[in-house]
Amino acid sequence: MNSRVHNFNPGPASHPLPVLEEIQAEFLDFKGSGMSVVEVSHRSKVFEEVMEDAAARVRRLLQLDDSFHVLFLQGGASLQFAMVPMNLLPEGRSADYVNTGTWATKAIKECMIQGKTVNVVASSEDKGFSYIPREISFSADAAYVHITSNNTIKGTQWASFPDTEGIPLISDMSSDIMSRPFDVSAFGLIYAGAQKNLGPAGVTLVIVRQDMLERVPENLPTMFKYTTHVAHGSMFNTPPCFGVYTIRLVLKWLEETVGGLDKMEEINRKKADLLYRTIDGSEFYQGTAEPESRSMMNVTFRLPTEDMEKQFVQEAAQQGLIGLKGHRSVGGCRASIYNAATLESVKTLASFMEEFARKNE
Amino acid sequence: MNSRVHNFNPGPASHPLPVLEEIQAEFLDFKGSGMSVVEVSHRSKVFEEVMEDAAARVRRLLQLDDSFHVLFLQGGASLQFAMVPMNLLPEGRSADYVNTGTWATKAIKECMIQGKTVNVVASSEDKGFSYIPREISFSADAAYVHITSNNTIKGTQWASFPDTEGIPLISDMSSDIMSRPFDVSAFGLIYAGAQKNLGPAGVTLVIVRQDMLERVPENLPTMFKYTTHVAHGSMFNTPPCFGVYTIRLVLKWLEETVGGLDKMEEINRKKADLLYRTIDGSEFYQGTAEPESRSMMNVTFRLPTEDMEKQFVQEAAQQGLIGLKGHRSVGGCRASIYNAATLESVKTLASFMEEFARKNE
Repeated sequence: MNSRVHNFNPGPASHPLPVLEEIQAEFLDFKGSGMSVVEVSHRSKVFEEVMEDAAARVRRLLQLDDSFHVLFLQGGASLQFAMVPMNLLPEGRSADYVNTGTWATKAIKECMIQGKTVNVVASSEDKGFSYIPREISFSADAAYVHITSNNTIKGTQWASFPDTEGIPLISDMSSDIMSRPFDVSAFGLIYAGAQKNLGPAGVTLVIVRQDMLERVPENLPTMFKYTTHVAHGSMFNTPPCFGVYTIRLVLKWLEETVGGLDKMEEINRKKADLLYRTIDGSEFYQGTAEPESRSMMNVTFRLPTEDMEKQFVQEAAQQGLIGLKGHRSVGGCRASIYNAATLESVKTLASFMEEFARKNE
Repeated sequence: MNSRVHNFNPGPASHPLPVLEEIQAEFLDFKGSGMSVVEVSHRSKVFEEVMEDAAARVRRLLQLDDSFHVLFLQGGASLQFAMVPMNLLPEGRSADYVNTGTWATKAIKECMIQGKTVNVVASSEDKGFSYIPREISFSADAAYVHITSNNTIKGTQWASFPDTEGIPLISDMSSDIMSRPFDVSAFGLIYAGAQKNLGPAGVTLVIVRQDMLERVPENLPTMFKYTTHVAHGSMFNTPPCFGVYTIRLVLKWLEETVGGLDKMEEINRKKADLLYRTIDGSEFYQGTAEPESRSMMNVTFRLPTEDMEKQFVQEAAQQGLIGLKGHRSVGGCRASIYNAATLESVKTLASFMEEFARKNE
């Protein structure tokens, strides 16, 4: 497929090519059903196996024990911003939030809209969200601690997760889920929009620990309750079938072709190191995140002038390097190098960056 | 594609074959982008055109004037059951609901969970939801009247919509949207899960009239407010791109290949008439809906015994006629013949039914 570009989109983003090819090959006849995967019943055996296998792969990859439920929901992280406090922040209690950028700010806002008490226990707003706060004091009575594991816009990422001394951690992991192994035992709930590391937009992976469910208020609308979706195995209503199907294939690729999360992290680290070395090895590029807070998923950098940034993005696109414009709220450049971005694509980008610097320095 | 079956699934359901073929053909390279449609940015020009064209086709097909907004959301009709009263039923007022079956019952339940006042002004529960109530007295001060235009489980459908004397009609049209033309002017809001007549599961079409938006409370969580999605053209957060893309292709097929809603209704009527004639022409089959309330989309019928129904579904499947089992809550048989079910498929089913009756009478 020499027409395929090098895709650095921030999400929706690159998918593994073998996954796309498998979808294409069986699109008119899913597993001998004589129907497309979009046409089979979500209650058919052939599709129930997809749901079950997708969840089983999440379990294996993240080493979840039986205390965790795996859900495939709709509405993206934006809906989870509201559902988390609605379900898990009981009246009379408060929650700790760490503010590391745009998405964390939105999560905080949605908690406050509900009239709940939010303690912003740490924030990196003082330096334009260019770092991950350290040495945070959590409130002893917090119902949970909410963090954003990776910040796509500013290109920062928690290198390791904070010790909350038993307070359940809740994390928006939309942009780095499945990019590296981590210890889930401290987490009460994890959510992730699929469109960066998991598959197409329109599915939200939610992982919720059994003890969290005791907090869910009885009188919430049915669709807003985690307990509803747990009780029905993500099939209270018709799930986003095509998305879950694709996620299953991506996770299969991750397990069987890549070889799991240790291997994935190794590759991701190689990709990120290459780009950060290119940035640091030149006066021309300036990384925007503090080095120890740098993201392995979103590499953000500036060029000497905005005009040059514009030219960089344009020339890159002409050479088939797509999606390098920074988020409209901050400008600059950004290379999103999620799991499916290949080392080859990243090498091509690094070479282009070196050459562009040479020509324009 | 002689491996393709005759698909009578109730949803997710049959798609037009040319649509599936187009998706397959361009799945690795969407419109020369060098990316799959699942990999392009939702904020790219190529995808914004998809969103705009999908909405424009909804407008043309339903002849919507500028007072209507067209939204593509997530969460299915089940989320709309909650969002409708949350947004459009102000405190101190009440809403009229007509109960015509399982889905209407759920809509009523979600309104009541919120502590709102529901008047069930008519119900066909007395006869197992086998008919559509007539001559309904609506409450003069109702904030809206909620109906379910087609009832997939019981196989009933509103042949024409009630005169509410100016009270905004709200309808769940999940299972018959785009199956026939109708006058939208009386409707304040229409919603439809995509997975029957529009495309794959995971997208909800919402059509909302401008004046309804004045009712939306300021303090709702952002994702629950219709005003949020109107203000952002369904792009407040990442939309379910693949689903909207497919819907656009289905609507294009409906406009350009079928020739619009008048033609679609003509074909749908032909399909339904053929099956109902087969049922009525035999002592063997018994239609379950009252004749004047029969659905053009879901044809429900019984055979002399449950064992024979089981055999019917099995033998049909062996001959490539799929999805004929009735909903697990009611049993019996059901042929769902949405827009994409071809006349040829329906003819094949009718022949099978005649032969099965002959052999087993």
